[in-house]
Amino acid sequence: MHFKFPNKHSAVLISLLSLGVVSQAATNEPIQPIKAPTDINAGQAELGKKLYFDPRLSKSGYISCNSCHNLSMGGTDNITSSIGDQWQQGPINAPTVLNASLNLAQFWDGRAEDLKAQAGGPIANPKEMASNHTLAIEVLKSIPQYVVEFKQVFNSDQITIDQVTTAIAEFEKTLVTPGSRFDQWLEGDKTALNDTELAGYELFKSSGCTACHNGPAVGGSMYQKVGLIKPYQTNNPALGRFDVTGNEADKNVFKVPTLRNIELTYPYFHDGAIKTLSEAVNTMGEIQLGKTFNATENAQIVAFLKTLTGEQPQITLPILPPSNDNTPQPQPFN
Amino acid sequence: MHFKFPNKHSAVLISLLSLGVVSQAATNEPIQPIKAPTDINAGQAELGKKLYFDPRLSKSGYISCNSCHNLSMGGTDNITSSIGDQWQQGPINAPTVLNASLNLAQFWDGRAEDLKAQAGGPIANPKEMASNHTLAIEVLKSIPQYVVEFKQVFNSDQITIDQVTTAIAEFEKTLVTPGSRFDQWLEGDKTALNDTELAGYELFKSSGCTACHNGPAVGGSMYQKVGLIKPYQTNNPALGRFDVTGNEADKNVFKVPTLRNIELTYPYFHDGAIKTLSEAVNTMGEIQLGKTFNATENAQIVAFLKTLTGEQPQITLPILPPSNDNTPQPQPFN
Ligand code: HEC
Ligand code: HEC
Ligand code: HEC
Ligand code: HEC
Ligand SMILES: [Ca+2]
Ligand SMILES: [Ca+2]
Repeated sequence: MHFKFPNKHSAVLISLLSLGVVSQAATNEPIQPIKAPTDINAGQAELGKKLYFDPRLSKSGYISCNSCHNLSMGGTDNITSSIGDQWQQGPINAPTVLNASLNLAQFWDGRAEDLKAQAGGPIANPKEMASNHTLAIEVLKSIPQYVVEFKQVFNSDQITIDQVTTAIAEFEKTLVTPGSRFDQWLEGDKTALNDTELAGYELFKSSGCTACHNGPAVGGSMYQKVGLIKPYQTNNPALGRFDVTGNEADKNVFKVPTLRNIELTYPYFHDGAIKTLSEAVNTMGEIQLGKTFNATENAQIVAFLKTLTGEQPQITLPILPPSNDNTPQPQPFN
Repeated sequence: MHFKFPNKHSAVLISLLSLGVVSQAATNEPIQPIKAPTDINAGQAELGKKLYFDPRLSKSGYISCNSCHNLSMGGTDNITSSIGDQWQQGPINAPTVLNASLNLAQFWDGRAEDLKAQAGGPIANPKEMASNHTLAIEVLKSIPQYVVEFKQVFNSDQITIDQVTTAIAEFEKTLVTPGSRFDQWLEGDKTALNDTELAGYELFKSSGCTACHNGPAVGGSMYQKVGLIKPYQTNNPALGRFDVTGNEADKNVFKVPTLRNIELTYPYFHDGAIKTLSEAVNTMGEIQLGKTFNATENAQIVAFLKTLTGEQPQITLPILPPSNDNTPQPQPFN
């Protein structure tokens, strides 16, 4: 190691890097195949899907979870920072919801423990959906078909925000993407990758990328400093874990993002400033590992990363139950 | 007839009203069942579905056809007037795309001849998607999977706006909603409607509603003055056909909207000012026919109208092909 690790997260990194690759039970590879979700409560997930697509959870009646985490586009909005209520610019790039259930915690800074804890946030965030939980529940309660479905699913006469976030989280658990070419290769089909892609994978491991991007999600399992070797230049004021813990050592420490479906989740980095995968790979090499890749190596790693695109969830668009005469009106322009 | 018809559209109305009901070949009813679409070019429709859901046809990368004509919500946005680029307020209520193929022409004022002529409009409308056709084509051309799919579908090396609108229109032709309870009744299942609904239908016919709302779409087949008997009070400046023809007689003459799926396409009227179906029915009675319905009659007609909700198109969310490194960047905030 020819560089100094500046903080405690790097201590984890040292031990990981010193293993060479992170070997895991199932295979000798640092990346494991994604498994299809099990133990899904089908009723909750189906209701959760409706809620995920329902813009009536927003003040304007226009913005749903799917507006920013578009399941036609890798579970993201593919813009630098999201568009929220009144076209407000969001503070940070929207991460994908695909495989988010595999993350150790939610948000770039990990401030939400799990999907359920996360799901209440955007509804009431004035820069996102700009509603509030009381209003959102009032809307749902006014819609007869929702009342019936909540009752069926939760066996209760009340509709609560706890049920809403439970259902959305259950739906999100279904949003995993098994079956990528890389997973086919991991599972024994040695023809699934071509030579360039395999060379890219070897480089990804030998360069040390797998120290941080590993496990089934190829990320999502730890926090790490962005700019370990060289500071990352950004105008984005987010300071990552520091914003949660207040510890100096947590400055610029972010959740390592999943690289699953990375071909679909451009632009890259928490500030969304990196437009191409090629640039993301070079930047990572430079700021995290002090490595410069030549054009061939870069292309190989990019080719490998594109094999991480899995089968996208097949979603039948939900048909939302209509509002009732007494449903609170959406307020798009006031 | 105890009222004077002020213009030539009313001449059509006179002859229709004097027939009592508009009898048609298939049944003796003024409304015919909706037929499942035939003669769909599957390749074009599948491509058109992608384009319909693709926000990259907008300047911001955020707005697609489905943003304003949400197929989870009856093909509308369920807000008074739509939200366009930069959260601009649209000029008029967004009509449903469901069964729009049955309309004699497109838009409230009929200014687009058909679905294909319509589809180019919103992409380049600065208040809607705010892109332009050159840029939209440049975006599509930069995306390898689109290039392949256009070539397969249109057997041409070029991507043109003509192909884009052809494909979108073909997809829209699939968006019909057969199978409503009313259609089941029309097709002979006399148990499909209850007594209240049947009473509502009888009133709908005997009051003269079917003079304008008839045919398979229960509308969409003619232009009529809004406010035949009594002016319709609105702050909306749209003047309907007059804006197209410049003829005085066309002031406040609008395409008669379809009443298919009317339960889903609130709010009502071209200005979106009418929030409930009950209010829409009373207003129509008053301003078009000089009739006042009592509460029972109103409830019966509303109950009938709700039987016009058909099977909603089952849409599998398209997975959009990712942008390429050279795809023009979306411009949400500048
Ligand atoms: C206006 C845009 C917007 C809307 C609407 C929105 N999100 Fe997000 N979402 C974001 C952004 C931006 C972040 C990252 C915020 C951060 O990390 O501080 C995020 C983060 C997340 C995460 C964490 C993913 C990860 O890897 O950390 C999940 C899960 C998520 N959103 C789900 C949802 C759900 C469920 C809804 C609807 C209830 C929703 N989002 C609505 C923009 C949005
Ligand atoms: C020390 C930990 C660490 C190492 C080593 C590392 N990464 Fe990362 N990686 C991160 C973190 C943290 C981020 C989030 C950066 C940000 O958003 O600002 C990230 C982001 C990325 C992204 C963008 C993900 C997204 O969705 O925006 C890519 C691609 C990536 N890394 C690839 C690599 C490659 C290739 C290597 C090896 C050359 C590598 N990483 C090495 C921690 C690491
Ligand atoms: C920003 C909102 C918005 C977007 C985006 C939008 N529309 Fe519309 N659409 C409207 C409004 C508002 C009208 C009514 C305009 C008028 O009649 O003058 C309309 C009218 C229509 C009509 C006519 C229906 C009828 O009964 O007359 C069709 C069909 C249609 N749109 C299809 C599309 C397609 C296809 C796209 C994408 C290429 C699209 N729309 C994008 C708001 C939108
Ligand atoms: C003379 C023609 C005519 C007659 C008769 C008529 N309508 Fe209409 N109807 C229209 C027109 C034109 C509109 C569009 C009004 C507007 O948008 O401003 C309309 C709109 C509606 C709407 C709202 C549709 C929407 O999507 O916004 C409903 C509901 C409706 N009519 C029901 C009825 C009923 C019930 C009757 C009989 C009591 C009736 N109409 C009689 C022409 C007519
Ligand atoms: Ca991203
Ligand atoms: Ca409407």
